[in-house]
Amino acid sequence: MFSQKLEQAAQAVSARLEAVLAGRADQPVTHAMRYAVAGGKRLRAFLVMEGAAMHGVPAARALQAAAAVEALHAYSLVHDDLPCMDDDDLRRGQPTVHVKWDRATAVLAGDALQTLAFEMLSDPATHPDPAVRVELVASLARASGIDGMVLGQAQDIAAETAERPLTLEEITALQANKTGALIRWSAEAGARLAGADPGPLGDYAQALGLAFQIADDILDVEGDAEKAGKRLQKDAEAGKATFVSLLGLQGAKDRAEALVREAEAALAPYGAAADGLRDTARFVISREM
Amino acid sequence: MFSQKLEQAAQAVSARLEAVLAGRADQPVTHAMRYAVAGGKRLRAFLVMEGAAMHGVPAARALQAAAAVEALHAYSLVHDDLPCMDDDDLRRGQPTVHVKWDRATAVLAGDALQTLAFEMLSDPATHPDPAVRVELVASLARASGIDGMVLGQAQDIAAETAERPLTLEEITALQANKTGALIRWSAEAGARLAGADPGPLGDYAQALGLAFQIADDILDVEGDAEKAGKRLQKDAEAGKATFVSLLGLQGAKDRAEALVREAEAALAPYGAAADGLRDTARFVISREM
Repeated sequence: MFSQKLEQAAQAVSARLEAVLAGRADQPVTHAMRYAVAGGKRLRAFLVMEGAAMHGVPAARALQAAAAVEALHAYSLVHDDLPCMDDDDLRRGQPTVHVKWDRATAVLAGDALQTLAFEMLSDPATHPDPAVRVELVASLARASGIDGMVLGQAQDIAAETAERPLTLEEITALQANKTGALIRWSAEAGARLAGADPGPLGDYAQALGLAFQIADDILDVEGDAEKAGKRLQKDAEAGKATFVSLLGLQGAKDRAEALVREAEAALAPYGAAADGLRDTARFVISREM
Repeated sequence: MFSQKLEQAAQAVSARLEAVLAGRADQPVTHAMRYAVAGGKRLRAFLVMEGAAMHGVPAARALQAAAAVEALHAYSLVHDDLPCMDDDDLRRGQPTVHVKWDRATAVLAGDALQTLAFEMLSDPATHPDPAVRVELVASLARASGIDGMVLGQAQDIAAETAERPLTLEEITALQANKTGALIRWSAEAGARLAGADPGPLGDYAQALGLAFQIADDILDVEGDAEKAGKRLQKDAEAGKATFVSLLGLQGAKDRAEALVREAEAALAPYGAAADGLRDTARFVISREM
């Protein structure tokens, strides 16, 4: 069953992250790093694992890259939650790092989690071929830096003080950077581990990433804050444009559904081997948190 | 002349960083990145360049790794200057990033500068052999993460609220992490680019890094804030232990001089080829800013 598979992968990734952080300096920042990488749906890791399995890469090898992208994702959440950024007190139902420790520890823990992602990818445990490892490093850097995730964050911050709400085109571009680039890297990593061309996985990931963000906006309106483990309806309160405000609730649901079909269609060349990725796309718009 | 050589290398590194940041998204965070990587003594870059020259690596090739470590250093300064960290308004005689823009932009610009360092190192421009590139990535990650620079930052923050000032042993260990690890990476990078064993360069760098920090503490007491371009005597005001408070002013000067001789001695196996690194060690304790 899909949810069991997802849960098993999540546990394996958590164990890998715990192992890689074991024996590090006994400092609050290390404890904060462990805290920040715990939990979550592990969607990005799952995409790495499924993409790898589809290309015949052993799960044990894919685990390292899967854990690395979760470390990078965790860094982005810790910094995103800071008072000077989104100012969130709750994440995954727990106090955010700067609330549980302090802002300095949150800045440093996020910084070191980013470094950890590149440390893990460059480790021979990721792949015996240095050319594969360095390509994973290079592509993750491009996906997460000023041309990818950080750009999306910057566009999001700029939108808060803009004179008019974002258009559908602008918010789509913003999300493609903010969350889409890392989701795409994750979906393509398995092919890279196999030395194969990511080919149509990029199209799959692009549709999936957008569906994911639309689903997030729908959950922000319809969701249960307790299940989500974070404050909801923040965007609406802030008067920010969302896919729901731009498309309406039903329009947003229809668009997410269409994107999932688009994601599924992109997987056609892989046949039944891509069923895990198909399930992932369905899951993304059906999740309750 | 040494100062001319240093200045030439600094200009080449600045040009490389400008080139790598050209054509990126036109956002405040990109402007803040450019601002943050401008200027500075470029000591770390110079160590890369000199170590590379000593191993017969062409300057054009060394420049990429030299620029990468300056991007990483710049990230650490931008985050270190944040109000929740050292809370500095002035850096290199200019307003710090969070003062000139805002805290969110400073967090993101620092984040993206770290990413940029790994993006640059993993780029084929650094070295045609992926094994060399990935080893540079792995070693920089180890030097700058939770076992290196970030650990030193965390130890520094912990010292501020500790019940007693640090001992000489503790402050030496702290500085070996906070500034020493990156200085060591820089001194060893040239050997790595040549596929050579860094060998005694680690001993050189360890002595140099400590001399550098002692010189910083001396400048903090004796220096001219205008020349230094930053606020001085902060540590003394905060009642923090420094090499000067622990060894006395003359004792600190004697120790720095002994360390420079130690650094020079470690270079003996390289003969005259290491004169540039010898000059660097002398420069580090003679600088006025």
